[in-house]
Amino acid sequence: MSVIRLLLAYDGTDFHGWARQPGVRTVEGVLEEALGRVLGERPRLSVAGRTDAGVHALGQVASFPAPDGLDPARVQRAVNGLLAPEVVVRSARHAPAGFDARRSATAREYLYRIRTHPVADPFTARFVWHRPGLLSSTAMRRAARALLGEHDFASFCRAAPAPATTVRTLRRLAISVTGDLVGVRAVADAFLHQMVRSLVGTLVEVGDGRLDAGSMQDILDARSRSAAGKVAPPHGLTLMRVFYGRK
Amino acid sequence: MSVIRLLLAYDGTDFHGWARQPGVRTVEGVLEEALGRVLGERPRLSVAGRTDAGVHALGQVASFPAPDGLDPARVQRAVNGLLAPEVVVRSARHAPAGFDARRSATAREYLYRIRTHPVADPFTARFVWHRPGLLSSTAMRRAARALLGEHDFASFCRAAPAPATTVRTLRRLAISVTGDLVGVRAVADAFLHQMVRSLVGTLVEVGDGRLDAGSMQDILDARSRSAAGKVAPPHGLTLMRVFYGRK
Repeated sequence: MSVIRLLLAYDGTDFHGWARQPGVRTVEGVLEEALGRVLGERPRLSVAGRTDAGVHALGQVASFPAPDGLDPARVQRAVNGLLAPEVVVRSARHAPAGFDARRSATAREYLYRIRTHPVADPFTARFVWHRPGLLSSTAMRRAARALLGEHDFASFCRAAPAPATTVRTLRRLAISVTGDLVGVRAVADAFLHQMVRSLVGTLVEVGDGRLDAGSMQDILDARSRSAAGKVAPPHGLTLMRVFYGRK
Repeated sequence: MSVIRLLLAYDGTDFHGWARQPGVRTVEGVLEEALGRVLGERPRLSVAGRTDAGVHALGQVASFPAPDGLDPARVQRAVNGLLAPEVVVRSARHAPAGFDARRSATAREYLYRIRTHPVADPFTARFVWHRPGLLSSTAMRRAARALLGEHDFASFCRAAPAPATTVRTLRRLAISVTGDLVGVRAVADAFLHQMVRSLVGTLVEVGDGRLDAGSMQDILDARSRSAAGKVAPPHGLTLMRVFYGRK
């Protein structure tokens, strides 16, 4: 057996997220079924980012064990023939033995997009959160700096069954402004459940003045979901890239 | 009575075009219904570009007679509250007496977008025709030059009940290439039915070598739909702008 590595893009609008669940349509579900038609049996997929319902991906990475003779280009063509343009295999290739899309990943990069113009835009509505009203990028950047680095991000994690640790290292949290489009780019070793959307929701409340940019340390210290801002809606979020190699 | 002028954007994917038709969902239909809720009765809309099923608009213009005291800003808010983000009123304002979105328009500008990359893109799939394979922009530009100006465009018109004349003046037909994205921008006084999509379909056949760039005059002279290339699919087409004022 060898390992095949897929680079994936998808429009998450009509999916209940990545992870296979009984009775609902998920990216993993449709992809495993499509791969099953090529391979003869459904593979067990490993994925770098288990995106939530409505979240998109431009640079998701998944991997699965495959028979040695399987041509990755054939896998790509077959899956794209079945699933494009909603789910697209951007590339497929053999990975070194032992490669696992989730365990081998050293960092993930997400981009959250916000439209601040008073009027909605039909052309970006699926991928950008329309939240009319000015946001102070100065205040947002000040708050973002306080969140960088290694912290216990429990306040920015959905209160689901707690993972072993809620400590993560946020390497980048950058605010960009292009006209009426505000982008929040986040890079971390790994993210907690709804962490990017919680960070964005909090930064937006800083940007519109409801929260003080200086209060981030207090929010972190609280280790309570209720201390942070509201979770931003899923459709503004896209998994952009997964990093492999040295941490 | 005064006249209100609307600047509209819409995602045409889930509409059977602009023009109201019984039993199907059209942009005119949903817009007239929404305006009817604000005005108390459905207005009679005039529109600059009667876009086909699946065609989008960024800068469509429509107008209707309205009671003198009606605040255009209220119309905009009410319609956007009902229809955004699929259909959006970008602006609403009083127009000079006698203004009619269709009759007063002096030119229309359309943009057709083509993705030539081998793999589809989930993020642009609704608004861009995915047609893998290189296109020669040199050949396309040569052909486009031969189509500029006043011609009988019968070969580029859907063979429906013939209009009084199929002579139109094509002021601009510009090819742009940005990475894997080819854009065809067309400006004319007015367009015949499916004319932009017929021009694009023909230019694509020139771009991939099936048609000779020097054959445009022959195609025009034939005055027959079958002389031109295949009609490009609707979803790549967007009405960008309508011009008013001196011809």
